[in-house]
Amino acid sequence: MLDIAFTGTGDAAQIPVWGCGCTACVRAKNITTFKRKPAGLSITSPKGVTLIDAGRNDLADCFSVEQISRIILTHFHMDHVQGLFHLRWSEHGRKIPVYRPDDPIGCDDLYKHPGIFEFQKPFRELDTIVWDDFALTALPLNHSKPTLGYLLEYGGNRLAYICDTAGLPVVTKDFLKNKRIDYLILDCAEPPSSKIMYNHNDLNSALEIIQQLAPTKTWLTHISHRFEHWLLHNPNTLPDNIQIAQDGMRIQLIPSRTYGCL
Amino acid sequence: MLDIAFTGTGDAAQIPVWGCGCTACVRAKNITTFKRKPAGLSITSPKGVTLIDAGRNDLADCFSVEQISRIILTHFHMDHVQGLFHLRWSEHGRKIPVYRPDDPIGCDDLYKHPGIFEFQKPFRELDTIVWDDFALTALPLNHSKPTLGYLLEYGGNRLAYICDTAGLPVVTKDFLKNKRIDYLILDCAEPPSSKIMYNHNDLNSALEIIQQLAPTKTWLTHISHRFEHWLLHNPNTLPDNIQIAQDGMRIQLIPSRTYGCL
Repeated sequence: MLDIAFTGTGDAAQIPVWGCGCTACVRAKNITTFKRKPAGLSITSPKGVTLIDAGRNDLADCFSVEQISRIILTHFHMDHVQGLFHLRWSEHGRKIPVYRPDDPIGCDDLYKHPGIFEFQKPFRELDTIVWDDFALTALPLNHSKPTLGYLLEYGGNRLAYICDTAGLPVVTKDFLKNKRIDYLILDCAEPPSSKIMYNHNDLNSALEIIQQLAPTKTWLTHISHRFEHWLLHNPNTLPDNIQIAQDGMRIQLIPSRTYGCL
Repeated sequence: MLDIAFTGTGDAAQIPVWGCGCTACVRAKNITTFKRKPAGLSITSPKGVTLIDAGRNDLADCFSVEQISRIILTHFHMDHVQGLFHLRWSEHGRKIPVYRPDDPIGCDDLYKHPGIFEFQKPFRELDTIVWDDFALTALPLNHSKPTLGYLLEYGGNRLAYICDTAGLPVVTKDFLKNKRIDYLILDCAEPPSSKIMYNHNDLNSALEIIQQLAPTKTWLTHISHRFEHWLLHNPNTLPDNIQIAQDGMRIQLIPSRTYGCL
């Protein structure tokens, strides 16, 4: 079984946003279950924990060095990597492999002083790695830095993690359109907007992707306080198979299907 | 009165260090008062709060936007600025001035996307700014990035904050040597070492600076788990007027003296 948890479902500002008095931020200040830390996942298998992104600053409180099998980065914006900066100075001895898009700049001095982390050769687009616990394929996305989504395959289940993006590049759309997607975790940072989106989906562009990929179930993530505020004032607008993710929410993948690569 | 609190007293790895089983790290895991977050100060006056460095990631939980008068950076290493990255996206409206050394690179994209923060013209060496609540003079230090210590003057009290440095540059030594220093907060990252120190003081170089400046009282800060571990195994080695700072410890400056600039 794979146990997948949302380590965070927020955008770079997180929720509550510092100094904000909107309904969403006030609610998150008062009720901690509504807080949103930077978007990311943990994937726990009998082999250990894989982190997708490392934007939380309290990862040391959540996971031991021994638990972490690998870290997979979608990109090098600060809200997706900031949790690595003090962890890298661990003197534990073992190295943790970090998989990443092909971004020669990275973030600040992470490449120069990787410490405990061992940056792997970058993914090329649509590269697949098959580990003992699951397989992952790198999906190029539309973002202001080189950014990858990932298609996870396990026991006949397919889960696509697509964050951060505005729409989908043709290569990713073409790769996914002939595949059955069971679960989709999708960037939807903004409420419906008439503006052209460049870095993140608004609800309109997210719904368009969902229509194209036709997943059985979708969770929206990378939620800004603007979208959360909109949702509070526009309840019951989403169909049953589209849900707003919450920090700590879990998805369990059970190897019940007879097809699939693992 | 100025109320000065240590927001953090640790190095970039913090204490406990991830995955470390040394006496200092195990103690800090078990007793939270022994944790050390990244080194920094808050200075509270009736005019508001000044932060010296912003390495803590939970500043939004500690201070409101309205409380913060200004932020003063010693330098742009991640452990001194990482707390700014998600705060910058506040949509509060007011801008918070950030004072800094002359470092054209800064840290990652902070200059490009400062958000709520307004980076001020860099300090030149020995520049003094007199605010309503206290005066501050910029003191060049020896570190791998352009780095400043600060001499704070208030009501006839002089407090020097000297972190991160290995020894002192001549300009700073000369500037301070003829001044009475009441309080010194000094980098001492490492236990006594036979190696030449480049970025931080070990206890030997810290004691040398203390001898040169002859402050009434000294607190050592930017403590690594290596030094903490050494201290636990070498108790009672420091004279009474030299103390190891702890997170949350406070110093109150009362305008009792008849000399001084404010």
